[in-house]
Amino acid sequence: MAHAPATAWADVPADQLLVMTLASGAQIVIELAPQFAPVHTGNIVHLAHAHWWDGGAITRVQDNYVVQWAARDEKAKPPGGFIPHPPAEYDRPRQGIPIRPLGFSDSYAPSAGFAAGWPVGTDGNRVWLAHCYGMVGVGRDMPPDTGDGQELYAVNSEAPRQLDRNLAVVGRVLTGMDHLGALPRGTADMGFYASKAETVPIRSVSLATDLPAAQQPHLQVMRTDSPTFSAYLNARASRTDPFFVRPAHGVTLCNVPVPARQKP
Amino acid sequence: MAHAPATAWADVPADQLLVMTLASGAQIVIELAPQFAPVHTGNIVHLAHAHWWDGGAITRVQDNYVVQWAARDEKAKPPGGFIPHPPAEYDRPRQGIPIRPLGFSDSYAPSAGFAAGWPVGTDGNRVWLAHCYGMVGVGRDMPPDTGDGQELYAVNSEAPRQLDRNLAVVGRVLTGMDHLGALPRGTADMGFYASKAETVPIRSVSLATDLPAAQQPHLQVMRTDSPTFSAYLNARASRTDPFFVRPAHGVTLCNVPVPARQKP
Repeated sequence: MAHAPATAWADVPADQLLVMTLASGAQIVIELAPQFAPVHTGNIVHLAHAHWWDGGAITRVQDNYVVQWAARDEKAKPPGGFIPHPPAEYDRPRQGIPIRPLGFSDSYAPSAGFAAGWPVGTDGNRVWLAHCYGMVGVGRDMPPDTGDGQELYAVNSEAPRQLDRNLAVVGRVLTGMDHLGALPRGTADMGFYASKAETVPIRSVSLATDLPAAQQPHLQVMRTDSPTFSAYLNARASRTDPFFVRPAHGVTLCNVPVPARQKP
Repeated sequence: MAHAPATAWADVPADQLLVMTLASGAQIVIELAPQFAPVHTGNIVHLAHAHWWDGGAITRVQDNYVVQWAARDEKAKPPGGFIPHPPAEYDRPRQGIPIRPLGFSDSYAPSAGFAAGWPVGTDGNRVWLAHCYGMVGVGRDMPPDTGDGQELYAVNSEAPRQLDRNLAVVGRVLTGMDHLGALPRGTADMGFYASKAETVPIRSVSLATDLPAAQQPHLQVMRTDSPTFSAYLNARASRTDPFFVRPAHGVTLCNVPVPARQKP
C-alpha cells in the first residue's frame, strides 16, 4: 500500500469533514456521505456550522454495538436550514452509483461491494451504506420517525448489519476511532451512562471548512475502483503473509476496511 | 429469554473458568474449551494453577482486532505438566461434535453453526472455533510455531475470521469483555503499548477452583441445542422488534452471540 500510486487515493473534500474534539483533547474526524443521505447530512452540516454539539456529550457506549452523542440541551432551537423531519434516507436508487463488487456472498444483502470508497449493499435497484466498524448513523425513535441528525452514533463492534436499511447512515470515522472504541462502557440500559457525570464531554464539533486553514485535516481515502484496492481486497480474502497457514479465500464486506490516510 | 426454562441453560464447570483480575479491580471471567484444544487448555490450566500471570500485564490493545496479555517475565520456568510445543490444535475431527447449523451461509467456512454452546465452522470432516467478539486464542510466532498458551489474546472487534484454523482458539470471555474492550489502544506497531509504563497490570489470573468458594463465579451458557436458542437465533436473523422497518432475514455467525448469565 505504501507503494500505491497517487491515483489510488482520493482527497476527502473539507466540506464533508467533521472534526470532533473531546474535552480530553482526543480528536475524531468524520467523513460525511451526502450522496447517500443528502437531507440528513445537510442537517448535520447546518448543526456543525452552528456549533450545535459544542459542550455536548457522548451519552452512550454500548459494548460491541455503538457509541452515541448529542448536544447537551436538546430543546435548543435548531439553526436555519435545518429540516426537522427528513425523509427515510435508509437507501437510495442504485442508478448513478458504480459498485465494485466484493466478489463474495453477503449474509445481509443480495450483493455487497464498494461505491466511491464506501461499503455498500445492493439489491440491484437500491443501494445502501453498510453498518461496518466506524460507520456513523443517525439515532432515531420508533418508526415512522427517521431521526433528524441531532443524535449520532458510531459502530464500535462486530458489524451490526441488521441495522442496514433501518437507519440513515451518514458517514464514517476516518481517524480517531481508537479514541471512541476505548471509551468506558455505560452501565445503564442499552449502554447509556448511568449519570450525567459519567458522560464524556465534547469540546466541539466543527465543519472542517469552519476551522482555520492550519487546523483543517487533509485526508485521503483509497479509491475502491483502483487496481490498488483490488489487490488489497484480494489480499484480505486470501492472505499471503506466511503467518497464515490456511488462508480463508473468503471475506466479509466489513472485514475489508477501506484504507484512509493523511494526505502526503 | 427471561422466560426460558432452566433446561435451556448449561452450567459452566468451575474447572473450565479462569478469573482474571486487573490491578484496577476489573474482573474478566474466561471459559476454556478443552474439547477443542485439549493440550493448549491443559497448559493454560497448569499456568493459572501456578499463578503464572499474577503480576503480568496486558501488553497489546489493537483497535478493531485483539487485546493480548502475558506474564511479566517470559523466561521463568513453566510449571510441571506444561507441554512446551503443543500440536496445532487449530481444528479437530468433526466426529462426536453435534452441530446446530446457523441456517445461513458463511463467508469463511463451508458451513457454520453452534456446538455445545460454541460458534464453529466446519467442512464436514473438521470443526473449529470461530474468531467472534470475545473469543480467546493463543498467540504464536511464525509457523510451524503453534504457541504454548503463555500469551493469550481476546478478539475486541469485527470478527477476524481470517484467523480461524490459523491459531488455537481456547475459550471466550463470558463476563468482563466490556472492561477489555474499553482499554486504551496501544500506539506502537500492531497495537502494542509503546512503553512498559503504559501496559495494563494484571493482579491475578486464577482457575476458579483455586479460589475460595465464595469467590467462584457461577455462570451458565445457553444450550445451543435448545428450543430457546433456536428462537433467539431466528429473532437475531429476522427482527420482530417494531424498531426494525426492514428485517434482514439473514445473520452472520458472530452476530449471534451465545447468551451467558449468572446462575440464578
